[in-house]
Amino acid sequence: MKRREFIEKAGVIGTGIGLAPKMALNSSKSVLNVGFIGCGLRGQGHISLVLQRDDCRIVSLADPDPIMMERTQKLISTKLDYIPKTYSSGERDYIKMLDREDLDLVIIATPWRWHTEMAVACLERSIYTGLEVSGGISIDECWQTVRAEQASDKHLYFLENVCFRRDVMAVLNMVRQGLFGELMHLECGYQHDLRNVKFNNGKQPYGGGVEFGENGFSEARWRTVHSVNRNGDLYPTHGIGPVAQYININKGNRFLYLTSVASKSRGLHNYILDHEKGGPDHPNAQIEFKLGDKITTMITCANGETVVLHHDTNLPRPYSLGFRVQGTRGLWMDVNKSVYVEGRSDSHRWESQAAYMEEYDHMLWRRYEDSAKGAGHGGMDYFLLNSLIEHAKINARPPFDAIDAATWKAITPLSEASVASEGSPQEFPDFSEGQWKSSKNDFAYGSEY
Amino acid sequence: MKRREFIEKAGVIGTGIGLAPKMALNSSKSVLNVGFIGCGLRGQGHISLVLQRDDCRIVSLADPDPIMMERTQKLISTKLDYIPKTYSSGERDYIKMLDREDLDLVIIATPWRWHTEMAVACLERSIYTGLEVSGGISIDECWQTVRAEQASDKHLYFLENVCFRRDVMAVLNMVRQGLFGELMHLECGYQHDLRNVKFNNGKQPYGGGVEFGENGFSEARWRTVHSVNRNGDLYPTHGIGPVAQYININKGNRFLYLTSVASKSRGLHNYILDHEKGGPDHPNAQIEFKLGDKITTMITCANGETVVLHHDTNLPRPYSLGFRVQGTRGLWMDVNKSVYVEGRSDSHRWESQAAYMEEYDHMLWRRYEDSAKGAGHGGMDYFLLNSLIEHAKINARPPFDAIDAATWKAITPLSEASVASEGSPQEFPDFSEGQWKSSKNDFAYGSEY
Repeated sequence: MKRREFIEKAGVIGTGIGLAPKMALNSSKSVLNVGFIGCGLRGQGHISLVLQRDDCRIVSLADPDPIMMERTQKLISTKLDYIPKTYSSGERDYIKMLDREDLDLVIIATPWRWHTEMAVACLERSIYTGLEVSGGISIDECWQTVRAEQASDKHLYFLENVCFRRDVMAVLNMVRQGLFGELMHLECGYQHDLRNVKFNNGKQPYGGGVEFGENGFSEARWRTVHSVNRNGDLYPTHGIGPVAQYININKGNRFLYLTSVASKSRGLHNYILDHEKGGPDHPNAQIEFKLGDKITTMITCANGETVVLHHDTNLPRPYSLGFRVQGTRGLWMDVNKSVYVEGRSDSHRWESQAAYMEEYDHMLWRRYEDSAKGAGHGGMDYFLLNSLIEHAKINARPPFDAIDAATWKAITPLSEASVASEGSPQEFPDFSEGQWKSSKNDFAYGSEY
Repeated sequence: MKRREFIEKAGVIGTGIGLAPKMALNSSKSVLNVGFIGCGLRGQGHISLVLQRDDCRIVSLADPDPIMMERTQKLISTKLDYIPKTYSSGERDYIKMLDREDLDLVIIATPWRWHTEMAVACLERSIYTGLEVSGGISIDECWQTVRAEQASDKHLYFLENVCFRRDVMAVLNMVRQGLFGELMHLECGYQHDLRNVKFNNGKQPYGGGVEFGENGFSEARWRTVHSVNRNGDLYPTHGIGPVAQYININKGNRFLYLTSVASKSRGLHNYILDHEKGGPDHPNAQIEFKLGDKITTMITCANGETVVLHHDTNLPRPYSLGFRVQGTRGLWMDVNKSVYVEGRSDSHRWESQAAYMEEYDHMLWRRYEDSAKGAGHGGMDYFLLNSLIEHAKINARPPFDAIDAATWKAITPLSEASVASEGSPQEFPDFSEGQWKSSKNDFAYGSEY
């Protein structure tokens, strides 16, 4: 499958739209020249994993932040006997890097507002592009990435790591083997108390103060301002990525429209008021945060499923992506870690998911469990990066491509529009331009990556 | 409070709208003459509880169904030394009963389509009315009940028993004592595999066949047809009743608008196909059920909260009303029976709800636990009926009145309209006509009922 797609993409037998057939069949590479745009904590996480591999050469790094660049160089110096080039003269020095260096793959892990510009720049320069996840800023931005990938001879891999979470992949097996029957309804989301991510003391990444923006550090420097100015589901992909695999979005199915509602906003303001470094006289206590504390979104699909999406990042709560996968024969729920399967479970009684997770454990996890140990986010980052690199080597169409990225990211501006219009339904553009009807989901069918 | 309201309702100091001041102060009764409209299984449940009390006299019964009437008479004969009059000559013989008998209280437990007509008939005849729950058929119907209660000197008590569920009442204590801070987001619903309620063999109430309508028995006789013809949240009150108490709907707050989506419909059809008494050649296999298997509704409130409402009655699953009560300081979730409270729970970790349920156990449950033993639905029906009867004795405004009934029931036709228009938002009528701003929630503040 990957081989066939590689050949198609290379233009040998392909009929793809706008594909420049400049890639030769023998361009498959065993060692990749890798560049990084964005050397913050997330970028450093990817770099750590790349450093453990012998099929990547870290050629260059771009980041205007001197602290993060220094940390990254330190991280790298312990492992490499060569020094990657650095590009840190301002926010657009990354373009110089793309023009000068011989890069096979670039990984982008930057503040959200830069994602599209950077991905487009990479694709335009015929570089396989790994793009970190985010919600979209606008629908237009989503189209830009789709168009850039169409015009390029390389692919964009949208780096949604939760698709590789062990339980999420086991449930993918359950779904594909028909355990839950025909799927009807799914839920997911991002429910993560980010208050000490959105605020810190300007020195440490998490907590210790109520600063953000210019006075904040790491994510607080850029992420928090989205909570000041925007009201909608700002971060939909960790939930919707896995759900999209379960119901084959853009691969035989597609999102039709959504509605979103937002609760009032209290959490971030209260955090500032109640923090020992904050209080009512702190300048940030004057800021009105537009983001409702709980955003809920409902999506309908061409094949008749419904999806509920939760966004909940300003309130005290345990972490939960809130998955629910429900079909004609049963359901899985994440929050109570339980499964119910008609004819197998005792009538009307939840079963612990444990036995199911073992029985349906994905072959990738069985095979690479040891390699994944210690990798970020419970090991799933290992699988993500491995998949990215193996796809990049043969310039294969990734499981989550520019069309998927656009579709998932579009939830954010559509959600904002729906909240702003008292829950009016918002139609999804068809970023696949009809190809969803014939495209096939090939995520995680193989045992290699 | 009840005393004051009683006096107001009696017109002594009241300024109520359309209240005929025909009730004298001394009309408070120690023994009530009670009539029943509807002697099906639900009516029999109420009758069983009334039979245990010495403050009620069962005067008369109305039901056109000879089987259910016979069962009821049998049930009663073991306990009473007198024989209540029966009215069973057709569907409207209940009107004769209302006109002839001297009734203080009538309890209506009939198929949904009869609820409004019967409640209006009781209120018009100055009878305190206990009305079983249902979704509304139309917005107009909701207004009819409100108008009838306004024009009557008696009240309508909407019999939402889940408001009295032990954990639901303990959480009401938690909410009122500020454990979760200011409430932001709530979830609830009716997630109950009703397939063997919607279908039976015409002889037993649950299962044993795929018959409904004229060939069905008990609820299958009348309830299932709603799944054939309607697509929306058909049964919202078990979830929304408790939620309305938590956020004081119609008592300082109100529902503004909702949006609903429906998944495709498979569960009921599959049940017929797969049942040993069914199969593809059974005539019911030809029926197209309009009701989606999973309906999801989002409601926004005047005070800025959001509510998600689940309706899920056609698929195999464990029973769950799916409560979530979330505020600025923490949340409760029903499905994992867990609580998180900032500063009390270990950071980012769920706690079992058990200790909270004990600590915040409602005084009514502490006091009447023994009396409630054996009553329907885990004991909550005892509290409901006790509250109904005590309110009826002094003609007090009930905690869930005609305005609440109309508001909660309105969810059904609004949800149908939203589903039919691809999730377009539907405004709630203000059935309180502005009174919600000054009305106070007095549910379960006392220790008596």
